Amino acid sequence: MDSYLIQVNGHGDHAPVLDVHLKNTGNTISPGKVKGRKPRWAVRASEMSKKTFNPIRAIVDSMKVEPNPKKAMISLSLGDPTVFGNLPTNDEVTRAVKEVLDSGQYNGYAPSVGYHSCREAVAAYYNCPEAPLKAQDVILTSGCSQAIELALAVLANPGQNILVPRPGFSLYKTLALSLGIEVKLYNLLPEKAWEIDLEHLESLVDEKTACLIVNNPSNPCGSVFSKSHLQEILAVASRQCVPILADEIYGDMVFADCKYEPIATLSTNVPVLSCGGLAKRWLVPGWRMGWILIHDRRDIFGNEIRDGLLRLSQRILGPCTIVQGALERILHRTPPEFYHNTLSILKSNADLCYAALSAIPGLQPVRPAGAMYLMVEIEMEHFPEFENDVEFTERLISEQSVFCLPATCFEYPNFFRVVTTVPEEMILEACSRIQEFCEMHYQGAEGAQDLECDK
Amino acid sequence: MDSYLIQVNGHGDHAPVLDVHLKNTGNTISPGKVKGRKPRWAVRASEMSKKTFNPIRAIVDSMKVEPNPKKAMISLSLGDPTVFGNLPTNDEVTRAVKEVLDSGQYNGYAPSVGYHSCREAVAAYYNCPEAPLKAQDVILTSGCSQAIELALAVLANPGQNILVPRPGFSLYKTLALSLGIEVKLYNLLPEKAWEIDLEHLESLVDEKTACLIVNNPSNPCGSVFSKSHLQEILAVASRQCVPILADEIYGDMVFADCKYEPIATLSTNVPVLSCGGLAKRWLVPGWRMGWILIHDRRDIFGNEIRDGLLRLSQRILGPCTIVQGALERILHRTPPEFYHNTLSILKSNADLCYAALSAIPGLQPVRPAGAMYLMVEIEMEHFPEFENDVEFTERLISEQSVFCLPATCFEYPNFFRVVTTVPEEMILEACSRIQEFCEMHYQGAEGAQDLECDK
Repeated sequence: MDSYLIQVNGHGDHAPVLDVHLKNTGNTISPGKVKGRKPRWAVRASEMSKKTFNPIRAIVDSMKVEPNPKKAMISLSLGDPTVFGNLPTNDEVTRAVKEVLDSGQYNGYAPSVGYHSCREAVAAYYNCPEAPLKAQDVILTSGCSQAIELALAVLANPGQNILVPRPGFSLYKTLALSLGIEVKLYNLLPEKAWEIDLEHLESLVDEKTACLIVNNPSNPCGSVFSKSHLQEILAVASRQCVPILADEIYGDMVFADCKYEPIATLSTNVPVLSCGGLAKRWLVPGWRMGWILIHDRRDIFGNEIRDGLLRLSQRILGPCTIVQGALERILHRTPPEFYHNTLSILKSNADLCYAALSAIPGLQPVRPAGAMYLMVEIEMEHFPEFENDVEFTERLISEQSVFCLPATCFEYPNFFRVVTTVPEEMILEACSRIQEFCEMHYQGAEGAQDLECDK
Repeated sequence: MDSYLIQVNGHGDHAPVLDVHLKNTGNTISPGKVKGRKPRWAVRASEMSKKTFNPIRAIVDSMKVEPNPKKAMISLSLGDPTVFGNLPTNDEVTRAVKEVLDSGQYNGYAPSVGYHSCREAVAAYYNCPEAPLKAQDVILTSGCSQAIELALAVLANPGQNILVPRPGFSLYKTLALSLGIEVKLYNLLPEKAWEIDLEHLESLVDEKTACLIVNNPSNPCGSVFSKSHLQEILAVASRQCVPILADEIYGDMVFADCKYEPIATLSTNVPVLSCGGLAKRWLVPGWRMGWILIHDRRDIFGNEIRDGLLRLSQRILGPCTIVQGALERILHRTPPEFYHNTLSILKSNADLCYAALSAIPGLQPVRPAGAMYLMVEIEMEHFPEFENDVEFTERLISEQSVFCLPATCFEYPNFFRVVTTVPEEMILEACSRIQEFCEMHYQGAEGAQDLECDK
């Protein structure tokens, strides 16, 4: 698959003056007061709001999604582990917030980067000899989304570019485009368990590259990079002097047979902004508690980036204080069994799903090693009725009432993504319906040719 | 006082290409791959982060604030009503959140503009015949700060301007500058209880004016606009076809002798984005629960602005869900006595403070009618020792350990702001220390002249 560059606002720095708010059109008016002419109403949404665009919403909203009324809908599309109630957060997590509420001590304004004691708690939790962290290295944000937004906004100027995985989480592109930053997609390789095509990655770096986004464990792939692969990625970043924005929101969410390595623990010189939060591991995505861990190496970020993050944080003034106040208790008191239990459910679901889908003609699932997703290739040549993954998943809804996200949402056509947080019986039912669907529409090599000839 | 224009990034739309991230300086390189030359590290914070600037922090950080070690510090500077513990939130407010936590129903992702049912609760609470509201007219945000940010970001493009009160809350400028939007300051008139100088306001409108910010009740003035004054403001906006961004975070926080009128209830044609939240009236500013109420008149905003707000909200994905989930209960269950009690404390403190400061030679407090602030003029000619309000308040700290914000923080030199949420005994002690300070440094007309002659 060839690489391509999404050209966003080709001359980001020289956007034409779009005076969409002009009130006295067609008249020569001094730039001062408006006199003589009657103004008229012409309120237009800003260019920035028009550049802010969620590709998943655009694709999903355009899908014809009338489920089969004879079958109950099963949605395997939402990356929200709380939807089905089978993965509740731990009691210690809610208890921690209730204690904070009772204390009445966390209702006021916190510093815009978060309370010092709460930053300290996060720093202590993630601190290790290879990647030491202190309170001042932690910035608390309104969810991991804001962490990524601040990290991007501090590292890149309009007209610069960032390197983003394909397939990859669509928010990177949404945020970059809204900031006038170009997106260059580097390939992940399904045949190598979604490792990065390092040669392709390095070929994309140019003098305007502001940062490299590394998402590990991966949404949508459910893949987990090995230590040696992370070292190879760091070697590229080091050679090219490109800082890393690590989206590690699924950090520690890996199955027993592999190990999660925070990329910063392996870096000796590449500076890393690691974005994380409570959302996935503690199963409370709605609480909007995220953070940036600043791993500066050799003082390359220096005060420059720290001050920039501090200034940017002042626009919104940090995350909800009652969750901030609960952080230390949440991080210390959540019992290890809770994490193990979540992972064992995710692994079991992933295994079931992988086994079931592997047996279906025309589908090629890629076995995940962590997170809560699984990507499935559609051998499109065997489904000549469908133009692409969007049509395939559309028809899967209308015939079988099973909703999977077409991977076009992740810039990766001809795949779809399955969410593995769904209860086992629903996964099994969904897989059996997918099987029925595929058997109905599958065309062997000859059938496909026949159809080709009919055209 | 003459008006002046803060020129921000004079040619916002044509910012020069600041390729601060250049890695191969001094060489002609193709815009493609970096080859041959060894890149070097040069990570710089973005232009946007450098344009994001909090004037209060800049001024306060530059002050020499060593309090008098013999006197306990009294800070009248922070607009956070929770600091002293004398104004706790109501038990129903915390109970509502605890019930939501127990339900386990609000841990997942909400839509980026908030849960429909929670938007409905806010709409129902503020709905009235003059300004009807439905769920779709409400956007929930991470605090009123984000409400203001989204409202500004959807209404204005870089290079356009917004009209901002002077004195006024510094966040408007911080947000505008970070978005490349120009700020034009219109005057408030202390001699008219801080009403807007309407002629001055109208004179500032030009063809690039994107919106008018009206802050009522006012921070830092504690003033409350009358119905007829609000109608006059609307008349200007209507004549000039400028939409209004109403910062109404202190809405309903007015003393018994006057009435709070949401500006949208008086508008027949001017569209209004009203920003509010739980912060001040419910005394939980740290919870970061804000909202935008979209009051469209004659479909002037239309889908254009609604869609823009929706798109912008997707960058951060809304406020903390456990507070969202509690909104309906908070709005319905908080007993009226709670609001009355807060206001009676604020009014009593304001009266005490006003009376005490009025008696001090060289000070001219302006009586507030709501919110939690009071502005005090320093007759600088009677304090020739001090260059300005910053020096005056600096010395007030070093001699009397009383900290008031110099109104230069609000673009209004020679005043200082007093926060009236402080416990009564502290206010009285602070006022008595301010009196001692002023008596020490006050120079009558002759004394001042003498000093003039000495120069």
